[in-house]
Amino acid sequence: MAELLSTVEFQMSLLLFVSLAGYLIASRINQSAVIGEILVGLAIGPSILGLITYTDFVKSVAHLGAVILLFVVGLEFKLKDIFNLKYGIIAAVGVIVPWIGGYFTAKLFGYDFTTAVFVGTALTATSIAITANVLKELGKLQTEAAKAIIGAAVIDDVLSLLALSVAQQLAAGSISAAATGIVVLKSLAFLIAGAILGQLVLNRLVVRMDRSAIARKYPEFVFIFAMSMAFLYAMGAELIGLSAIVGAFIAGVALEGVVPQHSKPFKEGAEYLHIIFAATFFVSLGILADFRAVTPAVILFLAVLTVVAVLTKLIGCYLPARMQKMSHDDSLVVGFGMSPRGEVAMIVALLALNSGLIMQDIYVTIVMMSVLTTLLTPIVLRNWLYSRVHV
Amino acid sequence: MAELLSTVEFQMSLLLFVSLAGYLIASRINQSAVIGEILVGLAIGPSILGLITYTDFVKSVAHLGAVILLFVVGLEFKLKDIFNLKYGIIAAVGVIVPWIGGYFTAKLFGYDFTTAVFVGTALTATSIAITANVLKELGKLQTEAAKAIIGAAVIDDVLSLLALSVAQQLAAGSISAAATGIVVLKSLAFLIAGAILGQLVLNRLVVRMDRSAIARKYPEFVFIFAMSMAFLYAMGAELIGLSAIVGAFIAGVALEGVVPQHSKPFKEGAEYLHIIFAATFFVSLGILADFRAVTPAVILFLAVLTVVAVLTKLIGCYLPARMQKMSHDDSLVVGFGMSPRGEVAMIVALLALNSGLIMQDIYVTIVMMSVLTTLLTPIVLRNWLYSRVHV
Repeated sequence: MAELLSTVEFQMSLLLFVSLAGYLIASRINQSAVIGEILVGLAIGPSILGLITYTDFVKSVAHLGAVILLFVVGLEFKLKDIFNLKYGIIAAVGVIVPWIGGYFTAKLFGYDFTTAVFVGTALTATSIAITANVLKELGKLQTEAAKAIIGAAVIDDVLSLLALSVAQQLAAGSISAAATGIVVLKSLAFLIAGAILGQLVLNRLVVRMDRSAIARKYPEFVFIFAMSMAFLYAMGAELIGLSAIVGAFIAGVALEGVVPQHSKPFKEGAEYLHIIFAATFFVSLGILADFRAVTPAVILFLAVLTVVAVLTKLIGCYLPARMQKMSHDDSLVVGFGMSPRGEVAMIVALLALNSGLIMQDIYVTIVMMSVLTTLLTPIVLRNWLYSRVHV
Repeated sequence: MAELLSTVEFQMSLLLFVSLAGYLIASRINQSAVIGEILVGLAIGPSILGLITYTDFVKSVAHLGAVILLFVVGLEFKLKDIFNLKYGIIAAVGVIVPWIGGYFTAKLFGYDFTTAVFVGTALTATSIAITANVLKELGKLQTEAAKAIIGAAVIDDVLSLLALSVAQQLAAGSISAAATGIVVLKSLAFLIAGAILGQLVLNRLVVRMDRSAIARKYPEFVFIFAMSMAFLYAMGAELIGLSAIVGAFIAGVALEGVVPQHSKPFKEGAEYLHIIFAATFFVSLGILADFRAVTPAVILFLAVLTVVAVLTKLIGCYLPARMQKMSHDDSLVVGFGMSPRGEVAMIVALLALNSGLIMQDIYVTIVMMSVLTTLLTPIVLRNWLYSRVHV
């Protein structure tokens, strides 16, 4: 019996099964499936039921999930969307203020330098899936505020990945300003070179590959190629000291907009992979969180950090929006709309935990902060802001 | 650097990359992609280049691949196709004769009982993908012989899975006729109950699920459910002592013919998963084969076994075809057309090796026998049989 519990079949069917339960819970509480999946992950993990632990298999699947997830995000990402100054300013201030807020909050609670850097980094991310969904349900997707949220969140993704790269270098001991500058430059160079060369070279290569005899003979060839690029870029990013997910994201950006004519559509294929591996990924995030690490002090830290997370994003996005002559109410919508942290914050926490840079208590705190900010946003937007403002 | 080589990114990108090379080789030698993938797997594995070994990660991916592969095979499998007496007889004799041939050949070469049982079982399988492709290229897919090959090969799949279940029980020590009988009954009961109940219950459940509010809200829900069933059935099969892939196959059969109206089509999704995981699966089969286990005696055994494999399938299918009043030439086409062993034989070898029931030399022999019979069939059909017969 114990042997059966360690089989690939058992672990995979359990992960998928409980992710379905996650959907049901999410649907019941009217939330994103991600929230439901993390909650069921918590339930089946060592914290509560103990049905499964974070085995090597779960870890591998989670790793595949993170790479595929960022690749699919990249595939949706239009390069020209980053070159919008207005949204760029909202995103930049909305990244810097939360970083500082997170860093000093962690310091205040007595955590060490590395931990504080990762807490700050986790606070930079914005997950707009939730907000976009709420705005869509309210029929507000075409408003000025909605466009600002989505535009800024896209840029925010890139800035968060940059912050992650810097955090990993800082944790590795390069704390001089010059070394940090080099990391920023290296990351930017990789991001820009990877994306632009990708768009110019890789993109055209795929188009030519798609027209070749081999793709006509084997329509799955281009799809396998695209996925191998996702993992190759991920490896390349690790090789130069960045995070693997940065590479996967860039691979996606490089292939954005390519629509094969003769081969199977790789974007569709990647999205199917994403469905399965994102589901298992979010469940595994819950499994990894061990609530036995939670003490009253950790709960206090979580409460304070969540408030800081919301306030810093609110202020960091409200002010630049307001300065760019958006209305008070619109700016509030932007600020709250950017608050959900979501998957990127959790991936930051996962990477840091797996590398031994943060401890369980901080991992749980970041995951729960991410869940709480995500739960809060729809409530604020739906019941408070949009019940009084007319955007 | 050594650390990088063990990352998920490196291993996954390597597996996918070389599978692309496998496609190129396969295209060059005008063969199925499977053959190319196994050959490149051999090249990068410990036998030759040593770029990668059969790590836990590769093993997990191969395991996922085997389950997904049989699930997709099952999705194509129509239950009513097994109830054709004519093709059933061809399939049955075409399974029994090779089993006996394989068993006694192994015995003759001094291998033990368990090994002989698995060699016999590996010889029962038929992979018609290759044959069907050749027949399609020759424009012979609508002939009587082609229909007999495809009909019998479908039944053959079920019989091979049955033989595998029996082999695993025999290896576990139940060698009495009564115990073997129980295994056959249990397997048949699982196959029939799983498939029929699946068609009646699971099938309808998916249809209802597809119409539910949850599927409308989350169009990926049904796909995740279908994949969780594949792994759950796989686990169920293991639980009652059958092979996991038998379960995955039955899950596929249970869901055959269901076309969701409101959700994402899970069959398409499963096929995309299949593309990636079958590619990595076949590469991993090559990686696992260690040619350092090959001695002159093993080469002799391989040569004899390959001849036995072709002859027993030829005789075992020719005779019942001929007895059912098919022409001599048609019966020859059926016999040769059923010869390629392909993936099922390799999965049998993989399972037996992983359970420590056979040694590396037998694993390599079965994989290479499978490759050789697969290489041979198109040559015989194209250059010899169809250049003289007019089916």
